[in-house]
Amino acid sequence: MTKNVLVLPGDGIGPEIVAQAVRVLDAVNEKFSLNIQHESALVGGAAYDETGSPLPETTLAKAKAADAILLGAVGGPKWDKLDMSVRPEKGLLGLRSNLDLFSNLRPAILYPQLADASSLKPEIVAGLDILIVRELTGGIYFGQPRGIRTLENGEREGFNTYVYNESEIRRIGRSAFEAARQRGKRVCSIDKSNVLEVTVLWKEVMEEVAKEYPDVQLSHMLVDNAAMQLVRAPKQFDVMVTGNMFGDILSDAAAMLTGSIGMLPSASLNAEGRGMYEPCHGSAPDIAGKGIANPLATILSVAMMLRYSLDAKEAADAIEAAVSNVLDQGLRTADIASKGCETVSTQAMGDAVLKAL
Amino acid sequence: MTKNVLVLPGDGIGPEIVAQAVRVLDAVNEKFSLNIQHESALVGGAAYDETGSPLPETTLAKAKAADAILLGAVGGPKWDKLDMSVRPEKGLLGLRSNLDLFSNLRPAILYPQLADASSLKPEIVAGLDILIVRELTGGIYFGQPRGIRTLENGEREGFNTYVYNESEIRRIGRSAFEAARQRGKRVCSIDKSNVLEVTVLWKEVMEEVAKEYPDVQLSHMLVDNAAMQLVRAPKQFDVMVTGNMFGDILSDAAAMLTGSIGMLPSASLNAEGRGMYEPCHGSAPDIAGKGIANPLATILSVAMMLRYSLDAKEAADAIEAAVSNVLDQGLRTADIASKGCETVSTQAMGDAVLKAL
Ligand SMILES: CC(C)[C@H](C(=O)O)[C@@H](O)C(=O)O
Ligand SMILES: CC(C)[C@H](C(=O)O)[C@@H](O)C(=O)O
Repeated sequence: MTKNVLVLPGDGIGPEIVAQAVRVLDAVNEKFSLNIQHESALVGGAAYDETGSPLPETTLAKAKAADAILLGAVGGPKWDKLDMSVRPEKGLLGLRSNLDLFSNLRPAILYPQLADASSLKPEIVAGLDILIVRELTGGIYFGQPRGIRTLENGEREGFNTYVYNESEIRRIGRSAFEAARQRGKRVCSIDKSNVLEVTVLWKEVMEEVAKEYPDVQLSHMLVDNAAMQLVRAPKQFDVMVTGNMFGDILSDAAAMLTGSIGMLPSASLNAEGRGMYEPCHGSAPDIAGKGIANPLATILSVAMMLRYSLDAKEAADAIEAAVSNVLDQGLRTADIASKGCETVSTQAMGDAVLKAL
Repeated sequence: MTKNVLVLPGDGIGPEIVAQAVRVLDAVNEKFSLNIQHESALVGGAAYDETGSPLPETTLAKAKAADAILLGAVGGPKWDKLDMSVRPEKGLLGLRSNLDLFSNLRPAILYPQLADASSLKPEIVAGLDILIVRELTGGIYFGQPRGIRTLENGEREGFNTYVYNESEIRRIGRSAFEAARQRGKRVCSIDKSNVLEVTVLWKEVMEEVAKEYPDVQLSHMLVDNAAMQLVRAPKQFDVMVTGNMFGDILSDAAAMLTGSIGMLPSASLNAEGRGMYEPCHGSAPDIAGKGIANPLATILSVAMMLRYSLDAKEAADAIEAAVSNVLDQGLRTADIASKGCETVSTQAMGDAVLKAL
């Protein structure tokens, strides 16, 4: 049976890194006879420029029909002044929400070959391997009411709503516990339950979910402390589970601990395991078009896609081994450049991965 | 004229560290003839245990009458199961809100003597000196509506409201620009304006405030990127200004960069410059009663209090010099213990500061 992948290059460095990832996808497709077809569509600023919408109907329809989606990145200063309803980010948020991709898996792994790239001391981060499970279709990102209104005294007021119901919390909780079962069997749930009622409910439901997983250990941590502990001793964590907003902040901090955010893939899954795969990093408009962006996070996103949505574990393993191999060869893009290693272009990095395959 | 200081030891290590800070206050009071009087009152869990309220009327009345407040810390597992309305944290939040202490100044400074304590590489943090200005009486901490309700389908839903009006944003903006004028003349405002409308307004008002301070440079950063940049290259910042929730998270991350959160004081000021002073760290229930807590953050909070609210700059300088002196002597509490240094108790650290004065 043919599997359909929708490719959404997006903005900034998106098209450059996705091009290399697609070459890798094509290579494993042939090598492992995976019967994967792919087509591209517009999203984000690129879609806005072309159609006036960051998520055109045709793109959404194709996304719904696809078995998996590979996304580059969206956004850039060019579109910063647009009304929020048509900004590139709305394209991304619209995909997440329309496809019900509530479970966002963000691994923060330190590649031994890149230990030097971290701003943290080697002993603090050596061997780091944590997984942040972020709720992606609810919380304050999507809560109503929201907006900017004018008060009676003529002043403006901005407001957003941070809201979660029990089933939303339960399903992301289960995602986290399932993931922990495959790993270190520990889940740390992050909340601000000493101040925010919505996270009091979050904490309670996590306790309930924990009863379904007696083999996994649950702990709780306040979000401010979690931000500190990630800096102080990140290896204490196995799986962290949290809401959309806290997850946005903590997963970026965690990714940066490795010093090589250009290496980290992510998966956003729905209840059936269909998903969207994208690098953890953004569209990096400052280096777009220069051919120097790191394609490895996107290439590793292809591996995640093969593993989680396309039932092609062998091909996923092969890609990950190839990436490890090029790092062993001492090849580095500019973001992870290091003394004694060779700095290569986006394209050359893609070539090297293909060769290693 | 007599100046009145209200001392609120609070919970956990609070009473131990405040005791040392009060000895230091008494010493400079005498030495510099400052005419300061102080009395103590209950707040937090200690107040709840005694009176059933984490912020008794008598404490609030004394706080309103005082020229400045010195607080230890509140909270602990003992009170974690209480209803949110009477938890220790409500005492702290009630003080902030009733006294209109909207401007929270949290310096993150690396003491050269403690460079080793950081989990970051020395070159990343050497000389670190940033100031986080956090809005403290608004945002999602105080927004209405809030609570946990039961939906028609029988499920529960938790909700909080993230809200700011223009004047709230303007006054914290001015605090930040005023502070930046005394320092590196750069303000970085942190928002999530690509997703949250309330922070779109935040960003706009910061732009307006910036016009009043042509000598100070304003930049903007998304909160997820800010969390990354704090880990990657914290020295790029001078003053960061942000809302209550983001400020809670980022200031703790920033404090931990120094590796010595036991050293960092904070000030929470109202429009008249009256304020509450407290260490950045929490009540550390795990080490309470052992006599090993670090009193220096609280002692340095006394220095901040003398400088900002009690017009006693000389005494503030003297305390800060004394603290630097004991560090030079190689004295360390357990949290900042280091090879070749002497690990001392809370009380012995207090003794040493007094002697150095
Ligand atoms: C681009 C933006 C809307 C998005 C988010 O905040 O979720 C990004 O930061 C991310 O983490 O994927
Ligand atoms: C104790 C708690 C309510 C408080 C806060 O979240 O503001 C604390 O974390 C702080 O930062 O002062």
